[in-house]
Order: sequence, then structure tokens, then C-alpha cells
Amino acid sequence: MSESNTLEKLIIPTFADVEVAHERIRTHIHLTPVLTSDYLNKLTGAQLYFKCENFQKAGAFKVRGASNAVFGLDESMASKGVATHSSGNHALSLSYAAGRRGIPVTVVMPRTAPEAKKAAVRGYGGTIVECEPSTRSREKTFARVVAQSGADFVHPYNDPRVIAGQATCSRELLEQVSGLDALIAPIGGGGMVSGTCLTVSSQAPDIRVYAAEPVNADDAARSFKAGHIIADDAPSTVADGLKVPLKDLTWHFVSNYVTDILTATEEEIIDAMQLIWQRMKIVIEPSSAVPLATIIKNRELFAGKRVGVILTGGNVDMDRLPWNN
Amino acid sequence: MSESNTLEKLIIPTFADVEVAHERIRTHIHLTPVLTSDYLNKLTGAQLYFKCENFQKAGAFKVRGASNAVFGLDESMASKGVATHSSGNHALSLSYAAGRRGIPVTVVMPRTAPEAKKAAVRGYGGTIVECEPSTRSREKTFARVVAQSGADFVHPYNDPRVIAGQATCSRELLEQVSGLDALIAPIGGGGMVSGTCLTVSSQAPDIRVYAAEPVNADDAARSFKAGHIIADDAPSTVADGLKVPLKDLTWHFVSNYVTDILTATEEEIIDAMQLIWQRMKIVIEPSSAVPLATIIKNRELFAGKRVGVILTGGNVDMDRLPWNN
Repeated sequence: MSESNTLEKLIIPTFADVEVAHERIRTHIHLTPVLTSDYLNKLTGAQLYFKCENFQKAGAFKVRGASNAVFGLDESMASKGVATHSSGNHALSLSYAAGRRGIPVTVVMPRTAPEAKKAAVRGYGGTIVECEPSTRSREKTFARVVAQSGADFVHPYNDPRVIAGQATCSRELLEQVSGLDALIAPIGGGGMVSGTCLTVSSQAPDIRVYAAEPVNADDAARSFKAGHIIADDAPSTVADGLKVPLKDLTWHFVSNYVTDILTATEEEIIDAMQLIWQRMKIVIEPSSAVPLATIIKNRELFAGKRVGVILTGGNVDMDRLPWNN
Repeated sequence: MSESNTLEKLIIPTFADVEVAHERIRTHIHLTPVLTSDYLNKLTGAQLYFKCENFQKAGAFKVRGASNAVFGLDESMASKGVATHSSGNHALSLSYAAGRRGIPVTVVMPRTAPEAKKAAVRGYGGTIVECEPSTRSREKTFARVVAQSGADFVHPYNDPRVIAGQATCSRELLEQVSGLDALIAPIGGGGMVSGTCLTVSSQAPDIRVYAAEPVNADDAARSFKAGHIIADDAPSTVADGLKVPLKDLTWHFVSNYVTDILTATEEEIIDAMQLIWQRMKIVIEPSSAVPLATIIKNRELFAGKRVGVILTGGNVDMDRLPWNN
């Protein structure tokens, strides 16, 4: 799928696509556990159910959408390989999925991306082409790569196959935990939030969907209030998975189904991340901590409620932990 | 139980004591999960089953033994409270258990113990009396505390109630994973290893029990070779839970049932710890990494085997991670 095709014709995935995706990817992903914490329940006054995509293959939920795209290709398309641009986890995930299928994968990645993520992409057999850490540079570099290789473009989020794949996460969560009042996930480009909206709007429309975003990269929150997409170039936040802007397909889901987009400061995000590490004894990346940070600061919205919290990933450069900088 | 009584009369717990302990503590502890890692299985050539006591209440297996001691006291004993000396996790665990029962608890702790552990003891309502970081200073300070309070002494490991409690961990593991060839746990004073020997010798005597120890605090390995207890005063290792020496009761189990005691250097321990954090996305403390470090370096002993690995705890000072020092 080329970027221009997606823009010309908006293909909105349905829950039937989610069911197909789930069957397709089931053997390539983990059914991740849901954890709870008495301490964090007391702290927030809510019942929090943490969906642990940090334990997912390749360390993040993105492997769901990437696997759905890769394993849905017919043989002739697959033989040309896949390509993407990504600030990190989608790159790992697409490399993992392409590796499982045995097809080539090229990733355009900011030169400033964590070394651990670059090494992991190469470990899965992916080829990295570096660009500058801006949306503009990334898209320019990527257009050149695709023109040269003829690879199928798997966008990190603005792709119906990817959104249908991400939607399998909340589909699992609804089977694992009954009676949820709300679901909250971090928002960058909006792939996970769109997938969550897709599942919830079809399967449990009474559940409210919240998105959580860093104040330092609050383009989605401002878009939500303005009623149209606002994109910033190269925002700076510790939550490095959340720097990218909404696109037309994710905007469709966010504008139609999200209850609100809440924001947290860098300090609040780092505090929430450390709380989860210390109290739950699990490794999550900064992006995954943004929902808890917003729950702590918007206590009145969540207290007394059963809240699903999607911990999106656990890929962290151990030598660059945010509280040691 | 006073320290001198234990020395005068060795009371060896039986598997019937383990069954009683398990019933007594079941509502106060977590049945912790067993995790696996494809990556670490490939790396070691073994099938590793990680028993995650880092997810245990109070963040460590020690809550099993401490709860068995606290909830086994009759009312008049309990009213005087409990006391202990501990380099960390036993202190947290005894404070947790005493807090659940609503009785006083006093802990003698080295002044150099991690701040996070001191804060947690106080958080559970425990009283801390500080001593110097040596076995000698700790025992001297402790004798004074017990003489003053009349509290029941719950030794961190050389106590049949504690060993019977720790034995519930391997009892769970044997129910969770079938056909194990070996079980390995870190060794400091030997409480967990003794509990493991107690369960295995009764329930699955074909399983080999290994202990893993830092080279920098290898008193148990040297004792094992020498055939009698050798105690060092204040060894220095990143695995701060493993600095204490064997005592008569744990020596009984170690000398009779352990197949071998393997050692790892500080660098090997830190590398193994980082591997587990990065690949399994879980937070473990340095002591918990010693078994994996010894498995990696003794590949021939474990390759092709099904091996239970006890991850003993997850209490880490996030501001003092060993790879950042």
C-alpha cells in the first residue's frame, strides 16, 4: 500500500477485519497477561487492569499490526519485501514479522533513535536507512527507499491492516477482564487508540476510550479540541514513541470515538514510569507510563471505575533511564 | 525462638510442616507466575522456567517464611511482637506479615542498606534500629534489642518456620511445571535453598538442586567443598541479599541435598541481570540474577535440561542501578 493511495481513498477497517487479523497473527504473538497492583489501586482509587504489551513479541503491541500486514500479503507482493519508517517499535515489529515470514524488510529510522532499537532491528535481519529526527526528513528519505525497492509500505499506524491488528489487543483485554468502565492508551500517531476504538465501538460501546499524551507532544489533544489534525515537526519528549502526528485514518477513529485526550508533563510521566517499575516489578518504556500519569492527575475521572490501561511496550535503553539523566 | 535455642537443639522441618505453612500463608502471599524466554532458552540451550518471586508480596520470596512465623504465633507470643536482623528483604517481609497481623515489629538493619528498603520497612509500620554492615555488629545490636523488647526472634533463614515457609515456593513450582531436571536458586544464608531441598527431597528426589553464589561472597561454596561452615565477615557484592553466612540448620540441608554450588563474578551477575530486564521486561534485584549467570557459564550442566530458576526478589534502588555506577 503506498502512502498516496491511503490518502486518496480512506479504507476503514471493521470488526470483521479484527477477527480475521486475530486468527492470522495468533501464532506469531503472545496472549499477554493482565496485571493488577493493590498499591496503584489505592493510590488512584480506581481498579486498574494493566494489559502488558511490554511482554509482547519484539517488546511492543506494534507486532500485532505489523504481523497482520506481513502475513496478509500474497506471495508475489511478499517476495518484494516490506518497508517502513518508524521511531522504533514498529521498526522492530515489522522486522520480527518479516523475519518470521522470511521476506526482506527496510526501515527508515531517525539517527537519534535508541541504539537498543537499532541493534534489535538488525538482530531480526532488518536493513536500516537513517534520516534526520523530523517527520519531514523521514518521509523524504522513505519515498526514495520505496521508489528504489518496490517494497510494500507498512505505515506505522495510518494503515487499515495495522489498525485491525492493534485492535486485537483490546479484543483480548475484553475477554480477560469483564465490566470495564474505561480504557486508556497512550497516543502518538493513534494506531493503538484507533484499534481500541474499533474494538470497543463494536463490542462494548459503553466503555469510554481515553487517550493519554505528553504535554510536550500534545498535537493530538490540540487536534481533538480544534476538530482537525494539527501536526508538529519534531516535538521533544521522553516518551519517544509518541512524537508522530495523527493521520487521516487514525483521525477518523479518534475524532469519532474518543471521550477525551489527557496530557501529562515530562516529570509526571517519569514519576509514573518509576512507580510501575518499583511497584509492579515490570520494565515499561516511557510512552507506556503516560496513561497512569494522567489517571493519577485526573483522579475524579477514574476513581471507583474499572479501567483497562494498555502498557504499550517495554523497549528501553537501560543505559539512558530518564531518572538518571 | 531465641538464637541460642536454635543452636542448642536443631529442629528440622518436614514436608508436613511445609503443607501446614502453605495453608497458613496462602491468603497472605501471591501464587507467583512462571515465565519463560525463547531468547534465554536459545542462549543457554536449556528450557528455563523462571519462578517470579520478584512479583511476590513485599517484592521477595522472604514473605513466605516470615508469614509462616508470624501467623503461627499464639496470641500471647504475638502480642509481644517480632524482631529480626536482615540485610533487606526479610525485614520488609516480616514488617509486611506483622502489619497484616497487627503486631509490633523491630528490625536491626545495616545503615548501608538501600534507602528503598528502609523506607518500605517504615511504610509497613516497622521500627528500624541501625547497625554497622557486618555480621558481628548486627548480632550484637540485635541481642540488645531482643533483651529490651521480649519480641519473638524470627531469624532470616536459620529457623525451621522460615525454611518451611520458603519451601512453599518450590512446592508451587512443582505444581506449575512438570518434569523438571534441576532447580537452581541463589544462596546467601541458605533459607531458599534449604526450603527447596526440603520440598524436592520429599516430593521429587530425582530433581537436582543447585545453588548459585557471587564469587565475591562464596562462603557457601567454600563451606560445601570443605565440609563445614565457613563464614566471612562483611563480603562485598552487588548481590546484597547474599552476603550472610550459612548457619547450622541451613547447613543441614545444603550439605545433605545440594548437588553443587556454582559461582559468578560481579560482571557476570550484572550482565545476567541486565539480560533479564531487557529480554523478559521484568525488574529483578542483583541476587536474582546469580542463577542465570551461573547457567550461562556452566552450559554443559544445563543444556537440554528443564531447569527451574527461582527469581528471588525485585527490590532495587532505581537510582543506584549497578550498570550506571
